[in-house]
Amino acid sequence: MLEKAPRIAVDAMGGDIGPRVNVPAAVQAAREGINITLVGDEEILRGELARIDGADALPIDIRHASQVVEMEEKPSDALRRKKDSSIQVACQLVKEGLADGVVSAGNSGASVACGMFVLGRIKGVERPALASIMPTEKEPIVLLDVGANVDSKPFHLAQFGLMGDVLARDVLGVDKPRVGLLSIGEEEGKGNSTVKEAFDLLKQTKLNFVGNVEGRDIFTGDLDVAVCDGFVGNICLKLSEGLARSFGRVLKRELKRHMLSRMGAALSMRSLKNFAQMMDYAEYGGAPLLGLKSILIVCHGASNIKAVTNATRMAATFVERKAHEHLAAKLAAHSELGQFSRHKAS
Amino acid sequence: MLEKAPRIAVDAMGGDIGPRVNVPAAVQAAREGINITLVGDEEILRGELARIDGADALPIDIRHASQVVEMEEKPSDALRRKKDSSIQVACQLVKEGLADGVVSAGNSGASVACGMFVLGRIKGVERPALASIMPTEKEPIVLLDVGANVDSKPFHLAQFGLMGDVLARDVLGVDKPRVGLLSIGEEEGKGNSTVKEAFDLLKQTKLNFVGNVEGRDIFTGDLDVAVCDGFVGNICLKLSEGLARSFGRVLKRELKRHMLSRMGAALSMRSLKNFAQMMDYAEYGGAPLLGLKSILIVCHGASNIKAVTNATRMAATFVERKAHEHLAAKLAAHSELGQFSRHKAS
Repeated sequence: MLEKAPRIAVDAMGGDIGPRVNVPAAVQAAREGINITLVGDEEILRGELARIDGADALPIDIRHASQVVEMEEKPSDALRRKKDSSIQVACQLVKEGLADGVVSAGNSGASVACGMFVLGRIKGVERPALASIMPTEKEPIVLLDVGANVDSKPFHLAQFGLMGDVLARDVLGVDKPRVGLLSIGEEEGKGNSTVKEAFDLLKQTKLNFVGNVEGRDIFTGDLDVAVCDGFVGNICLKLSEGLARSFGRVLKRELKRHMLSRMGAALSMRSLKNFAQMMDYAEYGGAPLLGLKSILIVCHGASNIKAVTNATRMAATFVERKAHEHLAAKLAAHSELGQFSRHKAS
Repeated sequence: MLEKAPRIAVDAMGGDIGPRVNVPAAVQAAREGINITLVGDEEILRGELARIDGADALPIDIRHASQVVEMEEKPSDALRRKKDSSIQVACQLVKEGLADGVVSAGNSGASVACGMFVLGRIKGVERPALASIMPTEKEPIVLLDVGANVDSKPFHLAQFGLMGDVLARDVLGVDKPRVGLLSIGEEEGKGNSTVKEAFDLLKQTKLNFVGNVEGRDIFTGDLDVAVCDGFVGNICLKLSEGLARSFGRVLKRELKRHMLSRMGAALSMRSLKNFAQMMDYAEYGGAPLLGLKSILIVCHGASNIKAVTNATRMAATFVERKAHEHLAAKLAAHSELGQFSRHKAS
């Protein structure tokens, strides 16, 4: 057990809005007992904190960082040239043992790069994976990878399954996560060449592997983890967000069209609000980057306060439950998968 | 110009329900002036036709076929062992000049296999593509490939773009279709290795190529054609269908929950119906398999009468507009893409 509450380093400058979102989000998390280190321009951060009643009594530190990675900046450039950027300093704090996890709504590519090269990978992990926790009709599902990798090998997909399983257990509290491999038919042998090989590897694990699943199985709630390459996962994630938004807009437009419907809409507003919540990705805050020695949560650039608060809570949960230790143990227990995969490929 | 109205061969035995759906659908299309050949068990088909008032006066022939491909049958087996299956006979009719196009709601894999090996490919086409026409907030979009191929090469993706352009022009009536390449970032250079190379090829075409697009761009209506590998496209298609259904179920559940909302729901029923129509894939009927010497439309196994009727209309439109001739001409005009691609790969 940890001696004390976890400390989360928040990249306070990251995101489309920046401190105006990250600081209130961190304050909310601090009110719930999470220790916070805000990383960024000290003067700006002090100013933001001063605007919030009672913030000075909370367990919040500030660590100055003189640089900010812009949203459009190339990740490799940002990593090399901006050693004092808020995201890199936040990762450095964890590496030095001064914090336990990082949350950032900044440039996703730069966050992933800092995570990999500053925090470092767990032994045996070639490719860390971004895991998105998405709403379904019932309980949420973990979809990974959603964009840290393209052109994944079968062995990488198998590791994503192992890591997704730990996330579903430790963070979502699922007992025996049902892990599926995203493909284009349920039968074994369906899919592209990478997926077919990954299927064989996943069958050898001790996961509750349910085999291939299809796009239509993601949102029913009958699955806990869906495994795919980051190219596919990123498209799926953005497609879902886009479709949800389109539905929302069409529904609103339709309801406004007729006077009768407008009355109806007013009456059914509460239900529609609940419906809208199903599509609210802010509910889960951000995507953990799994496979690192500590936890880094990558939030959407357009994140609101609720999203960053939830991401910070998720980081704290991850640390408290020692999920990264479970990850390392699970990956070590399946290290033979890599040998099998590489042997077969050669 | 065609001398006479097109004749469409309908695989009357195909689909989860079979003749009970396909025959009324074909009758509806025949009422609109499309010549129909129903292919399947003659006795069953005569029985179905007799149940429909006035069907005997319509331009409907029956062509007996003694076999049926089951939904779970392996396509290659079906092609080899069931030479007298309804789908294979339907394709044979087109090959012999006795029909102009085929519609089937049967086993998709078997339909694709019959299309490729009986109808034959247009010169220069290595991989025919299944094109799904999907609803968006505005006009429909063509997404292809949605499952005829996995592990597509860059050259295949470029050809999908050319074929999607012709479909959008001839069948959807779009003047200068905006063609996008589905990837994980809008900037050139984003994506997996196949997509990066396909980008270069698409830039060399005379298409209205708008570059990379993301999952969130599919449903806004600001794009006419989205190009991807069949593995990605099939997952996107099924994910969209699944998400639409989940939204529908959640919305209905929420609206039923409260008495107040029930009243509201009744009042706003018309708007909700219009909303539901946005998700109604039956509106577009089926997915044309592009790149063949004639047209084959592959319908969902669970298609209803409306879907098969619409697919039959689409096949007739395709034939009337001579879309396969435009396809062949467009592909021939871009034959150098294949040389470039193969040269580079070697």
